[in-house]
Amino acid sequence: MNSIDGTIASPKGFQATGLHAGLKKNKLDLGVIYSEKPAKAAAVYTTNQVKAAPIYVTKEAMQDPTIQAVVVNSGYANACTGEIGLVHAKKMQQAAADQLGVAATNVAVASTGVIGKTMPIELVEGGIQTIDLQEGQPYHFHEAILTTDTTTKEIVVQDTINGELVTIAGTAKGSGMIHPNMATMLAFITTDAEISQELLQELLSEKTETTFNQITVDGDTSTNDMVLVLANGLAGNTEIKKGTEGYDKFSAMFKLVSETLAQMIAKDGEGATKLIEVQVEGATDELAARMIAKKIVGSMLVKTAMFGEDPNWGRIICAIGYSETKIDPEKVDMWIGSVQVLKNSQPQTFDETAIKQILEQDKIVIAVDMNLGDAKGAAWGCDLTYKYVEVNALYHT
Amino acid sequence: MNSIDGTIASPKGFQATGLHAGLKKNKLDLGVIYSEKPAKAAAVYTTNQVKAAPIYVTKEAMQDPTIQAVVVNSGYANACTGEIGLVHAKKMQQAAADQLGVAATNVAVASTGVIGKTMPIELVEGGIQTIDLQEGQPYHFHEAILTTDTTTKEIVVQDTINGELVTIAGTAKGSGMIHPNMATMLAFITTDAEISQELLQELLSEKTETTFNQITVDGDTSTNDMVLVLANGLAGNTEIKKGTEGYDKFSAMFKLVSETLAQMIAKDGEGATKLIEVQVEGATDELAARMIAKKIVGSMLVKTAMFGEDPNWGRIICAIGYSETKIDPEKVDMWIGSVQVLKNSQPQTFDETAIKQILEQDKIVIAVDMNLGDAKGAAWGCDLTYKYVEVNALYHT
Repeated sequence: MNSIDGTIASPKGFQATGLHAGLKKNKLDLGVIYSEKPAKAAAVYTTNQVKAAPIYVTKEAMQDPTIQAVVVNSGYANACTGEIGLVHAKKMQQAAADQLGVAATNVAVASTGVIGKTMPIELVEGGIQTIDLQEGQPYHFHEAILTTDTTTKEIVVQDTINGELVTIAGTAKGSGMIHPNMATMLAFITTDAEISQELLQELLSEKTETTFNQITVDGDTSTNDMVLVLANGLAGNTEIKKGTEGYDKFSAMFKLVSETLAQMIAKDGEGATKLIEVQVEGATDELAARMIAKKIVGSMLVKTAMFGEDPNWGRIICAIGYSETKIDPEKVDMWIGSVQVLKNSQPQTFDETAIKQILEQDKIVIAVDMNLGDAKGAAWGCDLTYKYVEVNALYHT
Repeated sequence: MNSIDGTIASPKGFQATGLHAGLKKNKLDLGVIYSEKPAKAAAVYTTNQVKAAPIYVTKEAMQDPTIQAVVVNSGYANACTGEIGLVHAKKMQQAAADQLGVAATNVAVASTGVIGKTMPIELVEGGIQTIDLQEGQPYHFHEAILTTDTTTKEIVVQDTINGELVTIAGTAKGSGMIHPNMATMLAFITTDAEISQELLQELLSEKTETTFNQITVDGDTSTNDMVLVLANGLAGNTEIKKGTEGYDKFSAMFKLVSETLAQMIAKDGEGATKLIEVQVEGATDELAARMIAKKIVGSMLVKTAMFGEDPNWGRIICAIGYSETKIDPEKVDMWIGSVQVLKNSQPQTFDETAIKQILEQDKIVIAVDMNLGDAKGAAWGCDLTYKYVEVNALYHT
């Protein structure tokens, strides 16, 4: 498998663009992805009971899981906007269908931004009517979906599957309200692979558990989260079937795309200066391993300790202790980077200089061995900084 | 019922003091409470699976729930300190027993401070040997149990029960790792009431659910939490029995003491500038109401919005949506102070000046009506500030 430079439009038959419709002051705020052939689609959505209007509209479109275009706006979440919000999401869908010449039922809609403000739908429709896929730049789509993100997030991987070159591309936005199950995390993945819709959905659901659902910035699960995958089959490979070498390759590619996007979101969490990765092994089962990892990475005390570059293992074992999974409090081994700080839950003498160097890096790996079984799991997050408070206290409705 | 100025030693037959044993640089770090008559005791402990040594020692002492003295240190949590930690907690218990002339099995032990550092037990024992209850100042106990707290926390209430004046006094410490189920929250409550141990424990467990367990500062549940109640019966009232007027009075006093201490802890959360109170009504049941209230008050986005004095109801309804309880996302009414911001989940036009004045106060009340039933619940927390990050990033192990 190779990683290449590229965009969400790198797989065969996809186009994408982004533009400024006027929803945000200066930045791009409207984006579309288009597939020349209707694509098999799979999606996962926020578990928040308060769901944004575009979630309902996309779910309806996905009743027949064939999608040919995706239209996304930033600036307005179109959540808690009542009946008019649903009308607006549908208008956005219809406008994209008209402009791109596809069926409205094959258009997915997503929004991210402020909750509770009615969208200026005429700006959205006006923007959509100026979409020109020939003139557009695909990387503008990556930009158009951002809110408080500081960088675009994309990855493109390729491999030969069943004799043909297959490409998977992904792009995402994150930053705040990130504690997916799903968070506003939005992620879009395109591929030219030939694969059944059922297998695509199974793969997405499975990989989401260990990647997108294992990141946390602030513990808040958004009303707008969505991961959407489109597979248009234009690579020309014979269909990828489970239990084959081709599937293993595709699954590995898919995992890398999902995990990379998830880590990019965690690293670009609001105000973050560091990516924190927690690796748990020796757990009783994989779910337990993931729960422990996510509790550690979500602890405000661990997050501030990492910002302060302090090897505060006491806060880490405290978080392990309140994870809702059975542990043996006397058996925990722990490393910060390569330095062991706990053995059988007892503090180890360690090299202060070595650990200082580890904590100064912009990625810190905390590894934990529960010594109870064979299961592993990981989670990703970021440090909690002055800037986080600034971003969220100064952000006014 | 009257609130009076007083200390943890205000109920008849109690004495208390605090002193500097050398565990912290300058501040008082060792405290004792003594009852001239062995008291009936009730306790609740942290649910963290990693428990500090003093928790084990106090639980053992509570197998016969009669306690005559409590010894507490700050500066060292005596958690994750292995076998030697247990030895130290027992030595602390024995030293207090010897100095005060009581049975070691009647001494409760509590610690708060840094996790994982071995206690300098000779300093603890040396300090205990200088305890002089006649010369001591009871309010020094309130000071000796503090860590990053900025103020002592105490309340004393009195009422006439079954013909006699009954007093309940409480003092607590909080500040960080506060998300009790229990957090290091420590709270001590003394009373001279005559009441059975069983009823005292029942009352404590019941009131803890709606008071101490409904506060959150950082979502981290400590290894050392404990609430301990001592009732020595010296008020001379005939025993308080359930279902009587006397019980109702005592229960109301006990609730006020617990709720006041809980609010004091929330208000003095690390770096906090505001107390946030969330009142939920119209829920399907009381547990659901409490869960919703605690999710709102624990949301980092709500906490930063309150620090920024922004009426960001979108973040509040988002937190309601991810609470693990069934809601109707279209039926939520919400008020910030006296200003209604949502009706049936739809934004209401409100007076910007009025809400600005509400948000400038040092106590903000968020009220929510779920419009699903008759149950109520409340939770208390604090805003998330630059100072919180500073306190926790600069605190080095």
